[in-house]
Amino acid sequence: MKFTFTDTCRLSNNEIEKTAKILLPYLKHLQLVADKNNYDFAESSINLPFDEKSANEVKNLVKKLKTKKLQYIVDIGIGGSNLGTKAVYDTLFGYFDIVQPDRYPKMIFLDTNDPEFISRIVALLKRIKSPEEIVINAISKSGGTTETITNLEIVLASVGKTIVNTRFVVTSDKGSKFWNFATEKNVPCLEIPTTVGGRYSVLSPVGLFPLMMADLNIDSLLAGARSMRNKCLSKSVLANPAIVSAAILFLHNTKGININDNFFFHPELESVGKWYRQLMGESLGKDGKGITPTVSIGSTDLHSVGQLYFGGPKDKITTIIGAPSAETVVVPGNMTFPLVAHVENKKFGVIMDAIRQGVAATYDNLKLPYMTIILDDLSEKSLGELLQFKMMEMMFLGKLLGVNTFNQPHVELYKIETKKILSR
Amino acid sequence: MKFTFTDTCRLSNNEIEKTAKILLPYLKHLQLVADKNNYDFAESSINLPFDEKSANEVKNLVKKLKTKKLQYIVDIGIGGSNLGTKAVYDTLFGYFDIVQPDRYPKMIFLDTNDPEFISRIVALLKRIKSPEEIVINAISKSGGTTETITNLEIVLASVGKTIVNTRFVVTSDKGSKFWNFATEKNVPCLEIPTTVGGRYSVLSPVGLFPLMMADLNIDSLLAGARSMRNKCLSKSVLANPAIVSAAILFLHNTKGININDNFFFHPELESVGKWYRQLMGESLGKDGKGITPTVSIGSTDLHSVGQLYFGGPKDKITTIIGAPSAETVVVPGNMTFPLVAHVENKKFGVIMDAIRQGVAATYDNLKLPYMTIILDDLSEKSLGELLQFKMMEMMFLGKLLGVNTFNQPHVELYKIETKKILSR
Repeated sequence: MKFTFTDTCRLSNNEIEKTAKILLPYLKHLQLVADKNNYDFAESSINLPFDEKSANEVKNLVKKLKTKKLQYIVDIGIGGSNLGTKAVYDTLFGYFDIVQPDRYPKMIFLDTNDPEFISRIVALLKRIKSPEEIVINAISKSGGTTETITNLEIVLASVGKTIVNTRFVVTSDKGSKFWNFATEKNVPCLEIPTTVGGRYSVLSPVGLFPLMMADLNIDSLLAGARSMRNKCLSKSVLANPAIVSAAILFLHNTKGININDNFFFHPELESVGKWYRQLMGESLGKDGKGITPTVSIGSTDLHSVGQLYFGGPKDKITTIIGAPSAETVVVPGNMTFPLVAHVENKKFGVIMDAIRQGVAATYDNLKLPYMTIILDDLSEKSLGELLQFKMMEMMFLGKLLGVNTFNQPHVELYKIETKKILSR
Repeated sequence: MKFTFTDTCRLSNNEIEKTAKILLPYLKHLQLVADKNNYDFAESSINLPFDEKSANEVKNLVKKLKTKKLQYIVDIGIGGSNLGTKAVYDTLFGYFDIVQPDRYPKMIFLDTNDPEFISRIVALLKRIKSPEEIVINAISKSGGTTETITNLEIVLASVGKTIVNTRFVVTSDKGSKFWNFATEKNVPCLEIPTTVGGRYSVLSPVGLFPLMMADLNIDSLLAGARSMRNKCLSKSVLANPAIVSAAILFLHNTKGININDNFFFHPELESVGKWYRQLMGESLGKDGKGITPTVSIGSTDLHSVGQLYFGGPKDKITTIIGAPSAETVVVPGNMTFPLVAHVENKKFGVIMDAIRQGVAATYDNLKLPYMTIILDDLSEKSLGELLQFKMMEMMFLGKLLGVNTFNQPHVELYKIETKKILSR
């Protein structure tokens, strides 16, 4: 991963370093959390990629449940329980499901209570011929999540008893009501460490189990996260991407910029952006503070909100995220419609890179602030790096903003109102 | 469609009416555009739903190309050339494609230059057995759009000559270079009126042709748009949803609110939100002015950015969009995991409505400003109403902000930089 910011962030390295240094005591604390290598701290999610015991539990269960016939992994969870899984799955498989109808297994995500979606998945589930074609994974820290439990109940009622008894896995906090009910019924359970909140849990069994079931390489994902974890503990603050990025976002926010646009130049990374929306929104949005995260897709959104970004109010700090491509499809040399210059015989990756650089040049010309992340490739390893980078960035940024990065007190508000209405 | 705003928008009807009245001369102009019923004006898109000739051309071509074997409509276009089509298709079919693998025809959208996606679609196209299985539609007002032409060239090179000669349709401005090349090669062409810009073109052949190919009812879509067009020409300003919504968005913007969140309580409406992002971003984002449109999905995003919306900075004006559901799946009466109260035997639609109302109650408690749109149902007619409402809202809002609602001068900036890079 290559992270660049000098000049383009419209702040001097001096200014960044000064802010970054405020974080040194907190960095020391994070180093302590890493040294202890346990789950005693709010920040303990940084130890997940080093937790071999947890990864092995996942691997053993996958070994039992993996079959050649597997068609669908039904992932039932919402928010932190599915966004990280979806980020990785969609980048490498899910975005392409429409053009790869015969690639299996596919992951189906059930998060909200959509009547139209559930009625159609019920019809699909009724067509399952052998239990080996399906695995159901329900994920909830407490089990008290309305959407997850109601989706789960309908799915369980729609499949045969054999599937419920042999192809169903619960992921939860050990000792939660959900955990206890499940173990009573001999449903295999995977543990989420209590201190690890949903939005920091992608590298726990929350993400690892469904991703490995779906043929994704969780060892590479964890290896990427491990190397980035250590990079983000560096005391050379300007070489520490999480600290630098946090400082830049913070400094612009103090100057009134309230939007952080994440501009991905591969559409399959959109779900990574949606994962980041939760990470930033829920970690920082409290006490009247916070930055609104937005997700843009290059080049798609250049034909949509590009005009606004270039010509509208200067209220955004942008993170551009790109990656080289291994694919080699080229534009034909003898075009049927020779209406665009300089594209014949060019690879799509080359065109997309040129568009990304063209956008960056335009931001430069307009003096709009941005940082750039170029992943090494589109792989589990690179995604592990990116996710770990952003989770640690958020811890530093929460510290700078002076908020509790790990709670989400206001989420209860609408739940209370909703329960009042449902109980009528 | 039911549109409500009183009290919840945190502005008095008096204040709204005062601003709305500024728009009366422009309303008179729009009435003139409607009376002329031609394509002579920048606002002429409001006449599209009344254009029987254009709709008939679409219907005749669909009749020729529609076959029982049809599996894929490949829709090649970007920005205004595909976002409206995707909005309607995804709401009624696309969002469910993953759980309806055997429902055909499916629409495949090719917009940006993604190397990973194009390599997989090439593999899929090579497996097409009969030309009747596919229709290719390339949409570009000028034909000068890099992404559209390069995607098209690769698709044309990947399918047999018969498909290129018999199953390929171009949608463009009459007399554009694209149009002229296509007619020379005897490719059937559908016309986009020159004055209708991409983001206002969904009800032209841009949207109508692929949607009708995909079994969507374009007569209902147009009927919904027609009734809403007339409603949005009403001189009783408080009964004119487009004028009221524009006035509310404008008034909050003058008070420093720079984000308009569009909160959809059906996930399948997400692509409508993405269509709206272009409509608002590109229409208003100029001269340093503009409002950043965001898209949120209930209840998914309550477990993501909900905390930020409730507890963060008060920088948003929200449009809540819901719809009753015709689906009847219920939560089982005898729950395996009885961990959530008040949901047994309840329809999913009832739970989702309760969540939406719970969110609205929370916005009320926190005095956060919002408007509410409740569609009659999830149908082509309701989507026609919603799209037409929003397009006319944007015309009024652009007028209030004092910008040219119909141009997008800054989009050229990155294109120039990109071309420099590609020509090296």
